[in-house]
Formats: sequence, C-alpha cells, structure tokens
Amino acid sequence: MYNLLKGKKGIIFGALDENSIAWKTAERAHEEGAQFVLTNAPIAMRMGAINELAEKTNSQIVPADATSMEDLDNLVEKSMEILGGKLDFVLHSIGMSVNVRKGKHYTESNYDFTTKGWDVSAVSFHKVMNVLYKRDAMNEWGSIVALTYMAAQRVFPDYNDMADNKAYLESIARSFGYFFGVDKKVRVNTISQSPTPTTAGQGVKGFGGFLAYADKMSPLGNATALECANYTISMFSDLTKMVTLQNLFHDGGFSNMGVSQSVMDYFVEQE
Amino acid sequence: MYNLLKGKKGIIFGALDENSIAWKTAERAHEEGAQFVLTNAPIAMRMGAINELAEKTNSQIVPADATSMEDLDNLVEKSMEILGGKLDFVLHSIGMSVNVRKGKHYTESNYDFTTKGWDVSAVSFHKVMNVLYKRDAMNEWGSIVALTYMAAQRVFPDYNDMADNKAYLESIARSFGYFFGVDKKVRVNTISQSPTPTTAGQGVKGFGGFLAYADKMSPLGNATALECANYTISMFSDLTKMVTLQNLFHDGGFSNMGVSQSVMDYFVEQE
Amino acid sequence: MYNLLKGKKGIIFGALDENSIAWKTAERAHEEGAQFVLTNAPIAMRMGAINELAEKTNSQIVPADATSMEDLDNLVEKSMEILGGKLDFVLHSIGMSVNVRKGKHYTESNYDFTTKGWDVSAVSFHKVMNVLYKRDAMNEWGSIVALTYMAAQRVFPDYNDMADNKAYLESIARSFGYFFGVDKKVRVNTISQSPTPTTAGQGVKGFGGFLAYADKMSPLGNATALECANYTISMFSDLTKMVTLQNLFHDGGFSNMGVSQSVMDYFVEQE
Amino acid sequence: MYNLLKGKKGIIFGALDENSIAWKTAERAHEEGAQFVLTNAPIAMRMGAINELAEKTNSQIVPADATSMEDLDNLVEKSMEILGGKLDFVLHSIGMSVNVRKGKHYTESNYDFTTKGWDVSAVSFHKVMNVLYKRDAMNEWGSIVALTYMAAQRVFPDYNDMADNKAYLESIARSFGYFFGVDKKVRVNTISQSPTPTTAGQGVKGFGGFLAYADKMSPLGNATALECANYTISMFSDLTKMVTLQNLFHDGGFSNMGVSQSVMDYFVEQE
Repeated sequence: MYNLLKGKKGIIFGALDENSIAWKTAERAHEEGAQFVLTNAPIAMRMGAINELAEKTNSQIVPADATSMEDLDNLVEKSMEILGGKLDFVLHSIGMSVNVRKGKHYTESNYDFTTKGWDVSAVSFHKVMNVLYKRDAMNEWGSIVALTYMAAQRVFPDYNDMADNKAYLESIARSFGYFFGVDKKVRVNTISQSPTPTTAGQGVKGFGGFLAYADKMSPLGNATALECANYTISMFSDLTKMVTLQNLFHDGGFSNMGVSQSVMDYFVEQE
Repeated sequence: MYNLLKGKKGIIFGALDENSIAWKTAERAHEEGAQFVLTNAPIAMRMGAINELAEKTNSQIVPADATSMEDLDNLVEKSMEILGGKLDFVLHSIGMSVNVRKGKHYTESNYDFTTKGWDVSAVSFHKVMNVLYKRDAMNEWGSIVALTYMAAQRVFPDYNDMADNKAYLESIARSFGYFFGVDKKVRVNTISQSPTPTTAGQGVKGFGGFLAYADKMSPLGNATALECANYTISMFSDLTKMVTLQNLFHDGGFSNMGVSQSVMDYFVEQE
Repeated sequence: MYNLLKGKKGIIFGALDENSIAWKTAERAHEEGAQFVLTNAPIAMRMGAINELAEKTNSQIVPADATSMEDLDNLVEKSMEILGGKLDFVLHSIGMSVNVRKGKHYTESNYDFTTKGWDVSAVSFHKVMNVLYKRDAMNEWGSIVALTYMAAQRVFPDYNDMADNKAYLESIARSFGYFFGVDKKVRVNTISQSPTPTTAGQGVKGFGGFLAYADKMSPLGNATALECANYTISMFSDLTKMVTLQNLFHDGGFSNMGVSQSVMDYFVEQE
Repeated sequence: MYNLLKGKKGIIFGALDENSIAWKTAERAHEEGAQFVLTNAPIAMRMGAINELAEKTNSQIVPADATSMEDLDNLVEKSMEILGGKLDFVLHSIGMSVNVRKGKHYTESNYDFTTKGWDVSAVSFHKVMNVLYKRDAMNEWGSIVALTYMAAQRVFPDYNDMADNKAYLESIARSFGYFFGVDKKVRVNTISQSPTPTTAGQGVKGFGGFLAYADKMSPLGNATALECANYTISMFSDLTKMVTLQNLFHDGGFSNMGVSQSVMDYFVEQE
C-alpha cells in the first residue's frame, strides 16, 4: 500500500487460483496502483477462478496460449488497447512438465513430452518477449520477470525435466535481457522462489516432505506466495531500475546453505 | 516517496560526502519516512560534510571507529536511546585498502597494510553484527546490508587486496546471516554495485577508463549512487523480507555479460 | 603418452575434421591406450574426413543421428560388440543452431529452427545417456563428458540460441548425472572451453575479433583444441573419479576475469 | 603410476600424518616421478610423522612457518638448491581456526583468534606466492594448488570463521593467479574437497554426523584423501595447463545437489 506502481501498466500470466504466486502478485499490484491485463491458457482458465480475480482487481482477461505467437500477438495488442498505452511490467509464471504429469522417470523421458514441456515452460518466455520487442510494447525502464526454481542450478531429483526447462528459461532471461536492455532500456530478471504449495506445486511427488526439508534448511524458512508477490512488486517498481539479467533467489536463504543445524539434527542422531 | 520505511529505525555507516552511496541512502531513507543515526570514523568525519546531511535528514551523529568493539558498542547503545527502540535496518558502507593508498602492487603487499585494510573493510562488518546480535538490537524482519563489489568473484587487477576483502565481507554476510536469520529473523545481504565515482572510488588508478569499460559492457549502463540508494531502500523495506544470505548485483547487468557489442566493437576493428 | 586410458573403451561423438576438439581427443585417447568407436551424423560424415581418423586410431565408425533413439541404440549395441564389453568413457561434442546458420537474429527466432537446434545440441545428450543407462552400457567409474561454452552463464550476443541450448545441456549433465552417479557410479561433467577456431566455430559472425578479445582477457590466453583434448583425457582417467555434476572451465582463466589489463588498455586511451 | 610428473619439482605444504591429503599427494607425486621438498610448521612437525614420509618418498624436509616471509623465503631458496632448479608445482594445504579450537561461537569471535586463523589459513597462500613470484621460482606452465572447502560459498554453521578464511583464500587464488598467469604462465587453482576425516577435520564438532550427511547427499559419496591426491596430481600434470583461477569441486557431486533421495528419505517419513 505504498503506491509503488501508481500509473504503471502490465500483463500478468499464470494466475490459476488463489494459491498462485501470479494471483497474489495481481492482488498486490492492484493495491500498489497498477492496472493490468490477466492472461492464461484457455484450458487453464476453464479450470480457474480468474474471473473473480479480474473483478477484484478491476482487470480484464485476454486468454492466450503462451506457445502461440498468434495468441501472444493478440494479447499484447489488446492489452495496449485496454490499458491505453505501452507496458511497464510483465510477469511470466508458466510451467508444466508432461513427463512429470504422466509419471515418466527422468531417465526414461518421452521426448514428445519433453518438447511440449520445454515449449510451454521455457520457450513461451522467449515468445512473449519476441512479441513485446517487435511491437515496441514496453516503456523505457519497464520490468519483465519470470518465476523460476533453483533446480536450474542444483539437483532436486523429483523435479524431472522442469530443472532443464528452468535452466533454459533463465538463459533466455539473460540472452533476451541483453537486447531488451541495450535497445529498449528494459530490464529482465528471474525470481527463484522457495518451493511453494501452489496447486501446481502440490502435484509433485513427496512434496510435503520436501517442503519440510526446505523449510528446515532455510534460515528464515520457506517464502510464501504472498511474500514472493511482494518481492515481485519491488522488482516492478522504480527502486530496482538497474537490476537486470539476474536470477534472484527469494527463498529464506536456502540457496546459500550447505547445511543447517535443523537438518543436521537428523543426522547427528545417527552417529 | 512511498513511505516505504515509515516508522523504521536504523544506522547508516559511511556517509562521507554527497557522492557517497551511504549519503544518498540516508537522503532516500529520510524521504521514505525512516529515522536513523549517522556514523563514521572520527577521522573521516573531520574531512566530511556529515553535519549537513544530519541536519537535512533530521538525524544525529554518533562517531565510531568500526574496528573498535568499544566504539561500536557505544554506537548501538546510543542509537537505541536516540531512536527510542530497536533497529530495523543497518547499512555498512566501509572500505579502504592501505596497499592501494600507498601504491603497493598486489604481488608485493605489505602485510601490515593488508591486515589493516581487512580489518576496516571486512572484519568491521562482523564486529557490527556481533554487537547488534549480542545486544539483541534488531527487530524481527530487520535488514542488514553491506555494499560490496564484483571483484569478490572476478579479477579486476587494479582492485588489489580490496577484492579479497570483499570476498571475506560477503562470506561474513552468509556466515553471520545464518545465525541472525535462525535466531532473530533478521536478513543479511550484500549489494554488489557498479563502479561508482564516489570520492573513494575516484582514487583508484585508471578509474575513468574503467568506468567507460563497465558502462559499455552493461546493457543498462553503470548504476549511479542514487540508483543504488533506491535499491538499498527496497532491501530495507518489507517487500524483501525473505531475501537473505544473498549477494545482489546492482550493476546494469554487467555481472552476467561475457561481452557486449559495444565492447566487441573495439576488437572487431582488429580483424 | 602416459597410458592413462589403457584398457578403457569409449565412444567419441563429433569428430568432423582435424580442427575438431573431438578429433584431437580421439588422437590423444588412442595415444593413451584407449579403444573407441567414432560416430557422427551420416550427413556430417559425408563432409568429414573421419575415415582418416579411424584408420589412424585403429577405430571403427558407426554413423548415428544423435537425435534418433533408434540410431543411438544401434550405436551403443554395436560399440559394445566391437569393443567387446561395456564402456568407460563417452564424449559428446555436438552443437548446431539453425537460427545462426540462417542468420536469424536472437530476438526474431524461428521456433522450428530453435527446436531443431535444441534437439541436436542439447536433448541429444539426454538421449545418449538414456540409451547408455537403459542398456547398462557403462562400467562403474566411467566418465561421460559433453563440451559446452560459457554463453550458458553469461551473455555473448552473437552466440544466439546456442547460449540457451548450452544452459539446457549443462542442466542435463546435472540432472542425469545424479541418477548415473547414484545408480551406476558413473560421473557426468561438461567442459566449458575457450572459443576455438574449429570449422564450426569459424562460421560465427565476427569470430576473429571475438577470439582476439577472449585471448586478451584470459591470463593464459585461449585454450587450443589439443589442450582441450588433454583436459578431456584427464577427465576420462582414473585421476578424477569423484568429480561429477560439474561444469569445468578450460579457458585460460577467462571465466573468472572482470577485466584484464590488456583489455583495459583499449579503454584507458579513451580517458 | 603413469609417470605423469616425471622430471617435475615441487613443494608440498601440510603433510601432518598419513590421514593428510598432503601426505597422500606426496606419496602419489613420488609414484608419478616427481621430486619435491616437504614442509610444515616447526610445531606441526614435532607432532607429525613427516620423517617417515620423507624417507618413503626420497624427499628432504625444510621447516617453515607459512606466516613468516623469512621462513618462506628460506624455504623456496633451499628447495631450489635441493631440487636443482625452478619449481613446477606447489601444494598449499594449511588451515586452522583458533576460534574453533578454543570453542568460540561464530557470533562471539575473539578477533585476535580471527586474525591469527586468517593469517595462517589464507594470507599464508599470498605470502607463498609472493615469494615464488619475487624469486621467479616457478617454471612456465607450473601449477599452484590450494585446498579449500565449500563453506567459502555456502553456510556450514560449525565451520565457523574457516568459511570466511576459505573465501579469502579462494579470492587470493584468483587475484594472484591473474598476475602469475600473465607474467609467468603459471596456473593457480583451488580444490574444494569433500569433508575428509583427516586428523584436523576430525576435531570439528559433530563431524561424524556431518560426514554421513555429505555422503548421503553426494551421488558418488564423499571423496577420500587418496582420491583428492589423485585429482591434485592431474592438476599438477601437463594435461590441465589451461585451467586457472578456478575453484574445482572434488566432492562426489555434493556442490550441485539441492537434495538427494537419500537425504529426502529422512524427511518423507515426517509427512
């Protein structure tokens, strides 16, 4: 409630339901004075409660399959019409592994599944920026953020091919972020969030035990979806104009832990 | 001017003159509603214009040699008296290499100089946190930030032993940040800033050419002292509560560049 | 000539011509006492001089399209027959971007090209390991190496979508390396080599100027293809059995440089 | 037994007893054909069995306090006399925290202890290279290695101020490595080894439980002292001439793990 985003316009991808980080970000962006368009895949929207969010935040919804250049082009065009000008922020919060959904072990990937998950989870970020760049749709000093996970850097066995997708996504942030910075003065970053009990996250095998482990490893515990939304707001604000090409860990400190005392306690007893 | 730090109390080290990042941070913190104590080494204060800053920001000054546990203890005690309670933020912006000042090449360090610079530039951060921790002087979800430079990760030949000092400083942030997080719910981070033409920075050999190089390498150019102050404010605010143990690059993207087109242009002509 | 690989068997992908790192690795592996099968895509073999290499190293050739599970399955089966047992080492040296070849700028990717390059340059590594794992084709303490480039971590504008492909490739090394380590005691690493004037590398725009830049930035200069082959031999040997999931920079020090004096010299004159 | 170091001359610091990594490295270097001088602090030598090692490896011993420039100068001079020429390799395996020994918690460091430990564990590496550089004591393409630990990057609470010392040590490797590379064609690297049950390591609190944790986290398990010696030999050999300024993890893969299934098993039961 600081008016941090007063007058700013944006697009928020991936608000599925009230557990979503994108949902919380939309609520917080609204509180901070932003106007935005909500978007999601047509199929996800049928399942979701996005209309409620749109009403609450006084937003319009433009459905788009984030793997379709045509849909994205329509989305960006419509958004600029609806919002009455160029954009200041975009949140990419999209990810899905067909291998995970279908229970394929990482060592036995189905490569059609791999390709589909890569397209949805990673290439979609390139496509979004491709359209934004081509249409010159971002204002100078605008901010583009994608959500990611530390599996891009380190092994979490159950994360399957989403680890590789997130590595590719983070690379896109750097590769495209260079051109967006030089040519348009726009910044591009990824936020690497704690494991979060979103509806998507909860589907992963052994997720409860993993949440407990991450929480015990992190000096401040796991970050919540709302806390991630707050951090994302700071990255959309004018306070962070010179931060670009970065992967920013928002994880209670997990990423720089070797071991915590709380985790060690499980092993000390073994001696 | 968002009231981001309304009601928050802190200590700001290292505001030497109006070129200082700490100076700009004090001005911005004041604008955002914070109250704070300014501090600097007695010797630096004689040279500086800190009284002007104190007046402008309605702050008091408590001199302290940041290598002296006694001075730091007095500083924290006095600050809590002056501000009427525990602290929410602390900025450590202190660094000095005697080897650099005396023109000793890195391969021929004078180890008394090395020890002095290490004590001032790095160990002082441990001492500050030692006092804050022992006195239980930080409120929960408080934020401690130290300024650093990327020489901690990569070689900049003229940076001399300040590179090693910054590596030690960043390690202290992680090591002490763990205990501050687990025991006090306080976050500790370092901000790794672009080369900045502060009064201190300008003393380094070939600094002008280096600024030009860093500017051409960075997609958004070099970050200014004021921009760094803004970023520091975001790290003191409640928007970043779950970010801890991190080294955060605020550098227009320099840290993730291999080469930019602008830098390559100097070499392409050679072909 | 140390007999470092005496009695070891392997497969070497990607020996196109005598400038190839894979070619040099084959020569050095032969000198060190290894037996191996050479493989390449059927189309690359028509262009290449691989028969000469096979003769020189007393090897057989089994063509395989590294994106085809069928071809890879045949390759591994045949290799074990030819070599008379399980494998001790595999070198993956495969990479190609259709976007680069067709001159598509990174911000305007053709996504069919992107998918093809990703499949050839990155997913092929997963497929190779998939077959090796499923067939239990690696001896314990075997070593799998893929060649990569630092564009996976940092921006080199002309590297285009190969940057993202290499990020994905390195992630596969970690993700699959975990299972290969736990289940088979096999190590998986990537070697991140200096820019190298291979036949492939030379096609990249402005490559000559870039080689000069990298050479001046690196304290030891750019590493050659032969030096990379030597390093790869060390990673296949029993001296490095406990190194796994790593991305190993073989680059004369480039990766940890912020700036060298030689590069700064171009900018100092600007002051 | 490959004659990898045939004709090479060196100095090995820190062979305390047969559990030491330096001890194993001396044995392996001898087997590989190297000649070297053993050195240790006079006080450590009184406790140690270094004479036995000297006899076994046909080496001479030159005692030196690694914090004394005078002792180091004498060591390098004597070593060149004894070995009949310049050096090809140096191993720095020295570390000690007085705070750990005296049971001072990290948040309550005694700063005299901190300074002493920093001098012994980190600055000694600068002093060694200072002498080698000044005396022009290294042959071109020589190799200097220091042993380190991942606490330099990530938090291990019981590692205390050794974490900060190792961060400083690794920074010295980069900072001095630059000048050694450019001016002398010598490479400088650190090897970041698994926790190892050396006589020194075993003194750390809860070390048994920690070894078990690290072993379960690492896909290949913890690396032994002998395996580290083998890896060090590879770094002294001519196979790795272009690797410099690197911190090389030799840890069975621990450094790139987020969590292993074996560690997760402790937490899954909690659900």
